[in-house]
Amino acid sequence: MHIGEERAGQPLLTLIDYDEANHQETEVKSVEECFSFRDKPTVTWINVEGIHDVTVVEKLGNCFGLHPLVLEDILNTDQRPKMEVYGDYLYIVLKMLYDGDGNRPVEGEQVSLILGSNFVISFQEGKEGDVFNPVRERIRSGKGLLRKMGSDYLVYSLIDTIVDNYFLILERLGEKIELLEEHLVAYPTAPTLQEIQKFKNQMIFVRRMVWPLREVISGLGRKESTLVKETTEIYLRDVYDHVVQIMDTVEVYREMLSGMLDIYLSSVSNRLNSVMKVLTIIATIFMPLTFIAGIYGMNFKYMPELEWRWGYPAVWLMVVLIGISMLIYFKKKKWL
Amino acid sequence: MHIGEERAGQPLLTLIDYDEANHQETEVKSVEECFSFRDKPTVTWINVEGIHDVTVVEKLGNCFGLHPLVLEDILNTDQRPKMEVYGDYLYIVLKMLYDGDGNRPVEGEQVSLILGSNFVISFQEGKEGDVFNPVRERIRSGKGLLRKMGSDYLVYSLIDTIVDNYFLILERLGEKIELLEEHLVAYPTAPTLQEIQKFKNQMIFVRRMVWPLREVISGLGRKESTLVKETTEIYLRDVYDHVVQIMDTVEVYREMLSGMLDIYLSSVSNRLNSVMKVLTIIATIFMPLTFIAGIYGMNFKYMPELEWRWGYPAVWLMVVLIGISMLIYFKKKKWL
Amino acid sequence: MHIGEERAGQPLLTLIDYDEANHQETEVKSVEECFSFRDKPTVTWINVEGIHDVTVVEKLGNCFGLHPLVLEDILNTDQRPKMEVYGDYLYIVLKMLYDGDGNRPVEGEQVSLILGSNFVISFQEGKEGDVFNPVRERIRSGKGLLRKMGSDYLVYSLIDTIVDNYFLILERLGEKIELLEEHLVAYPTAPTLQEIQKFKNQMIFVRRMVWPLREVISGLGRKESTLVKETTEIYLRDVYDHVVQIMDTVEVYREMLSGMLDIYLSSVSNRLNSVMKVLTIIATIFMPLTFIAGIYGMNFKYMPELEWRWGYPAVWLMVVLIGISMLIYFKKKKWL
Amino acid sequence: MHIGEERAGQPLLTLIDYDEANHQETEVKSVEECFSFRDKPTVTWINVEGIHDVTVVEKLGNCFGLHPLVLEDILNTDQRPKMEVYGDYLYIVLKMLYDGDGNRPVEGEQVSLILGSNFVISFQEGKEGDVFNPVRERIRSGKGLLRKMGSDYLVYSLIDTIVDNYFLILERLGEKIELLEEHLVAYPTAPTLQEIQKFKNQMIFVRRMVWPLREVISGLGRKESTLVKETTEIYLRDVYDHVVQIMDTVEVYREMLSGMLDIYLSSVSNRLNSVMKVLTIIATIFMPLTFIAGIYGMNFKYMPELEWRWGYPAVWLMVVLIGISMLIYFKKKKWL
Amino acid sequence: MHIGEERAGQPLLTLIDYDEANHQETEVKSVEECFSFRDKPTVTWINVEGIHDVTVVEKLGNCFGLHPLVLEDILNTDQRPKMEVYGDYLYIVLKMLYDGDGNRPVEGEQVSLILGSNFVISFQEGKEGDVFNPVRERIRSGKGLLRKMGSDYLVYSLIDTIVDNYFLILERLGEKIELLEEHLVAYPTAPTLQEIQKFKNQMIFVRRMVWPLREVISGLGRKESTLVKETTEIYLRDVYDHVVQIMDTVEVYREMLSGMLDIYLSSVSNRLNSVMKVLTIIATIFMPLTFIAGIYGMNFKYMPELEWRWGYPAVWLMVVLIGISMLIYFKKKKWL
Repeated sequence: MHIGEERAGQPLLTLIDYDEANHQETEVKSVEECFSFRDKPTVTWINVEGIHDVTVVEKLGNCFGLHPLVLEDILNTDQRPKMEVYGDYLYIVLKMLYDGDGNRPVEGEQVSLILGSNFVISFQEGKEGDVFNPVRERIRSGKGLLRKMGSDYLVYSLIDTIVDNYFLILERLGEKIELLEEHLVAYPTAPTLQEIQKFKNQMIFVRRMVWPLREVISGLGRKESTLVKETTEIYLRDVYDHVVQIMDTVEVYREMLSGMLDIYLSSVSNRLNSVMKVLTIIATIFMPLTFIAGIYGMNFKYMPELEWRWGYPAVWLMVVLIGISMLIYFKKKKWL
Repeated sequence: MHIGEERAGQPLLTLIDYDEANHQETEVKSVEECFSFRDKPTVTWINVEGIHDVTVVEKLGNCFGLHPLVLEDILNTDQRPKMEVYGDYLYIVLKMLYDGDGNRPVEGEQVSLILGSNFVISFQEGKEGDVFNPVRERIRSGKGLLRKMGSDYLVYSLIDTIVDNYFLILERLGEKIELLEEHLVAYPTAPTLQEIQKFKNQMIFVRRMVWPLREVISGLGRKESTLVKETTEIYLRDVYDHVVQIMDTVEVYREMLSGMLDIYLSSVSNRLNSVMKVLTIIATIFMPLTFIAGIYGMNFKYMPELEWRWGYPAVWLMVVLIGISMLIYFKKKKWL
Repeated sequence: MHIGEERAGQPLLTLIDYDEANHQETEVKSVEECFSFRDKPTVTWINVEGIHDVTVVEKLGNCFGLHPLVLEDILNTDQRPKMEVYGDYLYIVLKMLYDGDGNRPVEGEQVSLILGSNFVISFQEGKEGDVFNPVRERIRSGKGLLRKMGSDYLVYSLIDTIVDNYFLILERLGEKIELLEEHLVAYPTAPTLQEIQKFKNQMIFVRRMVWPLREVISGLGRKESTLVKETTEIYLRDVYDHVVQIMDTVEVYREMLSGMLDIYLSSVSNRLNSVMKVLTIIATIFMPLTFIAGIYGMNFKYMPELEWRWGYPAVWLMVVLIGISMLIYFKKKKWL
Repeated sequence: MHIGEERAGQPLLTLIDYDEANHQETEVKSVEECFSFRDKPTVTWINVEGIHDVTVVEKLGNCFGLHPLVLEDILNTDQRPKMEVYGDYLYIVLKMLYDGDGNRPVEGEQVSLILGSNFVISFQEGKEGDVFNPVRERIRSGKGLLRKMGSDYLVYSLIDTIVDNYFLILERLGEKIELLEEHLVAYPTAPTLQEIQKFKNQMIFVRRMVWPLREVISGLGRKESTLVKETTEIYLRDVYDHVVQIMDTVEVYREMLSGMLDIYLSSVSNRLNSVMKVLTIIATIFMPLTFIAGIYGMNFKYMPELEWRWGYPAVWLMVVLIGISMLIYFKKKKWL
Repeated sequence: MHIGEERAGQPLLTLIDYDEANHQETEVKSVEECFSFRDKPTVTWINVEGIHDVTVVEKLGNCFGLHPLVLEDILNTDQRPKMEVYGDYLYIVLKMLYDGDGNRPVEGEQVSLILGSNFVISFQEGKEGDVFNPVRERIRSGKGLLRKMGSDYLVYSLIDTIVDNYFLILERLGEKIELLEEHLVAYPTAPTLQEIQKFKNQMIFVRRMVWPLREVISGLGRKESTLVKETTEIYLRDVYDHVVQIMDTVEVYREMLSGMLDIYLSSVSNRLNSVMKVLTIIATIFMPLTFIAGIYGMNFKYMPELEWRWGYPAVWLMVVLIGISMLIYFKKKKWL
């Protein structure tokens, strides 16, 4: 069974076969075309984009002798990144990340890699294209070490490309978070809080996708299998450092987001404070004044003030004096 | 003693005996029928549903040579998942989860497995039926590896089925949590908070049931006993991955629920803010106006304004002007 | 020196001597009576209740060759649970828990066990009796394994009895916490918060008493000493599981109490909200009405409305209309 | 360089030289007096109080062959507790704690110990005297093991004395915290919060001073050096237990202080609640009443009630009825 | 590629070559001048300030046989501190910290060190000068061990100088935090909160820069390579202690900042409380008084009080009595 989003259309198979001297690139029409490359000494990279067609995956699996559990795991796109040693090949699962341009959250796509002694098979879900073009370009141009080294170096290059892409994703997330932070300080609103939560969830998502990769890469370097040569290990150490760096950055963002939550919550309290101050100032000024007006609105027969010539202006004077002294009081209390 | 909920009725015993060629399925009337299968080379699976009848458990235990402590642990349904090696058999405890359809929280039922070289005994509490039907179906049909492998593969299959069921439970919990989140953003109420707490407690419950399973499975794969063959270990690794994935999901849900708690608490503060704004707006508009009305309600003899022809309309004009300027002020402060 | 609460009265010494065939139980008047049992091959259990009489402890210690540090630790009742190997005997400290029936918090009493090859000495503070009666009963009746096994099994039985008692204590605590939770949801008050804190502190207390026990028991099972035989180890594994289960339960209660704290704090905010709503509703309805009444209480000479025949009823109509429309508005805002 | 507070005056040197038979105690005038004791087989304890005179430390260091880094560390009083093995001597840093009697926070003083095969040198900052008098007393009296054992047992005794002093400090802190807790429940004020924070900081301080001591002591017991004999190890195990117990207590106090913070914060909210209730009750009672008074203060020509004989008493009746019914309502809502 | 801030100008190269007897210091114009020192037995320290000129780094790298990945890492200034063993040289990355004098946050600059058997190359970003002058001074003066030891001791000295600088940075940060704390207690404002967050972020930054250094230094001391001699290890242990001490201090500051956040948030609540008290006092005093004035402003025909000779003074008496009794009430409630 294929667990994951359903997709229409034919899966796309491309095959690149190379050694130091030559390279050959083919778009494969039927799976059977690949089989002849299995026993060639040159390095063969078969890239499958779209795993919804179970038969394609199965045929490839049978030809290259993959264990049924591996095929199951390739088709089930809910895997955590992991690395498993199966006698004469390694099975690696990792996640390629995409971020939406606008407000779309970061999404992941499962990439399965099979590393044999002279072949690499990569399975992608095919949701959004891939990030492997730099690798293809380097095979075509023949620059760098890629053409000179074996299949293990190709797998390293693919993992490295995916991890490099994480930096990009995180950088964009970081920019968005900083934008949100500026917005938060300027004018905090309830949707800001939901934004913060959304970024927090994305950080959890990225961490889940990246965290297990450390073990995968250190597992590859631990020489459990002879498939990864010593010359490649030094490069894996480098990718390992990158992954640790990414985890570091994710933690920093998470702490920043927690800090933003504190600022948001305290700003809500601060606004309540300022609302209450306005109310209190108004009430404190006008309640005594209204009381005074009420007093002289009483209908007692014997109220000498009412008869006075300057009674009315005196009331106004009192009103102004009380108002001003209240304002001075609030100024002193730094409420204004 | 049997520790756990009391149940009436007879415990249900079923026995399946199979090898690659044949299989035989019997509903057992009396425990003694099972004893003859003990020394047969074929794999025998005895499933006991309902452990409240202590004598059934004891008879089986005596026949298959189980340690008194094992029998005690089978009957005490408050065990944590664990695996224990007893010479020629393994004792495994794990938890089967059920979720209520409506608002019932997730509940667990203890499943004890005894793995001998040619038999498997499973003890269930019998609260709600079991999830082993797919295993039975595969034995009957003879498809897959089950019939070709030994008793250790049967135990793997049973554990795998239970773990697969966890995914279902978590998925449904996840749907409910997302529903609650939507509700929370739309209109947060006090019961929402209690719902969040309820889900948090369920997550703690699931974690308690699942977390120790990692050790159980890695213990099975560590070859402490010759009962688990190497061919089965690769499958146990797979279940292990599933359990880790479930723990991952539980953690994600827990972080989501914490985030929801933050949103709830801040929404309560926000509502307080908006209530206070209404109060402040009303008070700020009407207190000065009431004061003005109070002034001209005073009974001073010499109040020239009272005699004016346009005094009364002038007051109304003042009232309207004050009201409008207040509204503009609040508009500017973004309180409206 | 004896560190701990001072107690009056004579310490109570009881001695039980048994092997598979016979058993003999004596209440000991003077410590010297015990000395003759030191070299008998039968298992001797000396139970000392009350350690405030330092000479009793010292005499026993000298007779059975205990290290001065051990005697010091027995007398100092602030020890953490621990296990120490001293050549030909083991020294074990653990805590017996008591809960008060009413509102008394859980309290602990230190129990020191000395395990020799053919004797066990248990020292209790003697605050509240002990929980060892089931063990005594099993020795008397001769049922079970106790009489057939050595002194290590006796020590296991004593530890097991104490750990079993923890379950009871936790169960009662759990019931009280659930009661408090129901009360909390119904009507939260400030004392509720203090209750929550009290239970939190008790959980910390229980954890402190129980947590180190894991190491003690796994230390006993690690065969550092030949005093614990292999046949007993399987039973120690069982107690170990119980201790882990207790720690689990304590953690669950702690998380529940944290959740209750959240509910309490948010319920305080909610009540503030509802208080403020009442205030705002009252103010919003009566402030405009009072203003209207104030207007028509003014003493202007030229106020045409005052002369109107239906002026007064018209004001009442206005008052009713404003009141009703306000109520509808609050109904819409779900404040009522 | 000497890093730490500057002090005036001469450092105080005392020298105690002992074996099982004799002991000799000298107040040293010039450092050179100590040098002759270096090669004597008896145990020599040189205690330096005041390390601001760098030359004294240097001369001693040169005579007893201390590494320059050790001298640097002795003079720099910002060290964490640590233990370092240097060929034929051990260097130990730990902290002596003092608490101010009134409100002074707990302070620490660095104590450096040099353990050689037949000598111990202790360097103190000399801020407040030391806690070593019981050790001196035991050397003088010749009671106990001290005179019979070597220099390693002396170092153990010094560490033990310092650790015992921690218990005292913690006990006093505990009493202050409990006093604060009682005060908090009775009447929480803003300074209470600052008190809580102050105790929290002190707990962090104590933890920093004590935590690394565990490693120091377990390092001493790990036999990395032949300087610590096996007979002393059993005593070190005892000190180790004490340090763990102190860390336990510190954690308990920290949790208590967190709980107190929660209580404080919620009590602030509760007081806000009760303030708001008073306001709401007053407003809810008097706003309607003032409105009624306002109505009958209107000057309409045709207001039949004004002419009624019992109009005025009827208004009073209404006022009383409304007031009472409001009070009943608030009683029901449990606001009163 | 060079990842990091772009800088103009020529990178600055200085070369110091020394052994116990001689030392020579040159400002290098062209990279090629360095090459002749590669095979000299004396220790050569090449310091590159400014890595934006990729060709300089590449030429040096080629001459001294550095791996392309090392060159890449030197140029990419986003590295975490790390140590890597490459056959005949070690590659070390660490961070030099700078703090702005005014309100500028702490910033870091990457320093890469290459340790060969007879040379050390240090690459700095060249943002703000360096902290290596004390080392240069010690080489020039020939005091201390530096000239007598090999290249590994030079690397130790460089790391030590950088770590010593951390103490300075932390001390200044600490002073600023204490200043902020005093300010916070005196008058907490919203910008205070942002200040707290800023310091928190700086602490996270410092921790990120310093934390991995522990592994780097313990890695250097673990003798994975023969480049670090045993005589130097004792010094590395010392730096290690310093790094641990710095991490300790960072944690203490973080806890202090958390405490300050609590104080800030509770002070916001306290101010709200005091605002509300003012409002409630005013309302509670004037609402009843205004009601009384309203009563005697009613126009009922039959209101006997209005006719009384002392009615008006009696009202004033009542007003004063009510006012005073309210004030006493609030005094009692400790609101005033």
